[in-house]
Amino acid sequence: MPRWRRFGIGPSDRPQGRRRVKKLINDPATVLADLLAGIAAAHPELAVDTEHRLILRAAGSRPGKVALISGGGSGHEPLHAGFVGPGMLDAACPGEVFTSPVPDQVLAAIRATDSGAGVVLVVKNYTGDVLNFQLAAELAAEQGHQVRTVLVNDDVAVEDSTFTAGRRGTGATVVVEKVAGALAERGASAVEVASVGERANAASRSFAIALSAATVPAVGRPGFDLPADRIEAGVGIHGEPGRRREALRPARELAAEVVDTVLAEHPLRAGDQAIALVNGLGATPLMELYVVFGAVAARLAEHGITIARSLVGNYVTSLDMAGFSLTLTRADPELLELWDAPADTPVLRRP
Amino acid sequence: MPRWRRFGIGPSDRPQGRRRVKKLINDPATVLADLLAGIAAAHPELAVDTEHRLILRAAGSRPGKVALISGGGSGHEPLHAGFVGPGMLDAACPGEVFTSPVPDQVLAAIRATDSGAGVVLVVKNYTGDVLNFQLAAELAAEQGHQVRTVLVNDDVAVEDSTFTAGRRGTGATVVVEKVAGALAERGASAVEVASVGERANAASRSFAIALSAATVPAVGRPGFDLPADRIEAGVGIHGEPGRRREALRPARELAAEVVDTVLAEHPLRAGDQAIALVNGLGATPLMELYVVFGAVAARLAEHGITIARSLVGNYVTSLDMAGFSLTLTRADPELLELWDAPADTPVLRRP
Repeated sequence: MPRWRRFGIGPSDRPQGRRRVKKLINDPATVLADLLAGIAAAHPELAVDTEHRLILRAAGSRPGKVALISGGGSGHEPLHAGFVGPGMLDAACPGEVFTSPVPDQVLAAIRATDSGAGVVLVVKNYTGDVLNFQLAAELAAEQGHQVRTVLVNDDVAVEDSTFTAGRRGTGATVVVEKVAGALAERGASAVEVASVGERANAASRSFAIALSAATVPAVGRPGFDLPADRIEAGVGIHGEPGRRREALRPARELAAEVVDTVLAEHPLRAGDQAIALVNGLGATPLMELYVVFGAVAARLAEHGITIARSLVGNYVTSLDMAGFSLTLTRADPELLELWDAPADTPVLRRP
Repeated sequence: MPRWRRFGIGPSDRPQGRRRVKKLINDPATVLADLLAGIAAAHPELAVDTEHRLILRAAGSRPGKVALISGGGSGHEPLHAGFVGPGMLDAACPGEVFTSPVPDQVLAAIRATDSGAGVVLVVKNYTGDVLNFQLAAELAAEQGHQVRTVLVNDDVAVEDSTFTAGRRGTGATVVVEKVAGALAERGASAVEVASVGERANAASRSFAIALSAATVPAVGRPGFDLPADRIEAGVGIHGEPGRRREALRPARELAAEVVDTVLAEHPLRAGDQAIALVNGLGATPLMELYVVFGAVAARLAEHGITIARSLVGNYVTSLDMAGFSLTLTRADPELLELWDAPADTPVLRRP
């Protein structure tokens, strides 16, 4: 079931007659197919399997290498297709907008990429994703594939929310895919690759605030309304409600609150190093993300935490939501070394 | 004078009292300083000179190398700071939001980066930028610097518009900075670097459409209003009005119109190869940009034009404007080879 349906929005709420949702799409029903066509046209280094709805490395992967696979609803681009390539993913399985990929799709990805060393699935913690990836893993195991799963659950906003039991998975997915992908590229076993992915997830926590809601194309209106002077704190990447609505304040105050909220449930301590991701939710200009990052860095310094590596930009988006998420990963020498390892994907490139 | 003032918006139109513009900023008056602080915190590979408001390579540039410098108003990030680094720019000079850098700032950039081989300035064609860079070039020449200027004027939307005599400069700036930067890195002379930049500009044309207007922080409301079913075709990156308002249509129709509009004033012909940039204007999700790119590729194929290289994403933005621009560059072997040459900047990285 599409996640947006769980907001209680049914087909009768879809745009009526000739009115079009104000987006650069052809039709709400063809968004995924049109997205795949665009990715195929833009990235000759990727192979798009339109039948199974997979994005793969065009050159294939090294035989004997553990395959790293992820996926989830569309609308979070560049996640996951933007991280397919040497040093990160072997395959991405995009579902419809805000909707889990189906088990057959994940199974097709496993069959397309497992060269005998097994596969590791990176799954964001949403009930639909968890169930569908688990079913695919069981089907694949029956067919003789060795399958390990890394569950990403970094969002400290809420325990148990609209689509999730436990913490939701968000920005840490990028960190998990980078470090697990780097280790897989070196010939590590599926157990080792999954283990470092789990370690990166356990070392990560995130929190997001929204200035405006996303509009799902098939719905045609924002998932929630926010007054001009209010923000939603603890929002999810499908517009799941957060902890509370708060007053809009200067970026430095919002950033400090987000840092403090993340640290309250984080193993990070004074003296630690962190990988910091200030992530745009889709409609926030890079100028503003840098303003936020400056404030995040200042607040972390007050906590005695050093930013060892960082990303600022749109990595895990929520359609056209305005706002940002902060992900902090406690860095250690192994994670930093894997973070810095070579990668050649549409979004992350390292020499 | 800030460009947004020329819309006839004066200080009395600024947000009154305690009402805040819904952006992730601290104060409209400190956006540039806060942006620079964020860039400095996020990019140890860059050096931010807050006194002169410059972004430089932290490691400096090779002595004897021609220095490539660009700049312009803030609000277009990642332009230009995101393109500072080996293989592209030596320095970026950011002005206030939608406001030209001042001559002293550009002069400081020239003095900081000229190691004796001269400098090449990449200037987008807006009257304020042209005048201020020209004044800086004259002052630098008096101090013994060899200075060449490449004027970027790729936007076919209008001849002579709100801030410009002749065509405006937009997306082609990225192409010019990439190829000129690559040639400079190889030890070419200032004349040669400027020449290839001029050639890339002459081979490029762009056109943009907006689904919504940008809000300048100091103004606090959108530069123009667009009804839910209308787009602005031929918009500029400061919200300058375009050719006309049109009906919102499916992405494939909008993309085809934009391709045809660009080709009508482009040296590209059937059988040619192109570098294609589908650029988000700041608030358009990557999912939609890929949908547009697929449609652009299909339309170019109908014209017999092959996409040799491409970029899809936010490269030359206009604060929180929703929409996209298309830039097409006629590719030849030299331009392609320089496009593919090594680069190590926050946004563009090539091995």
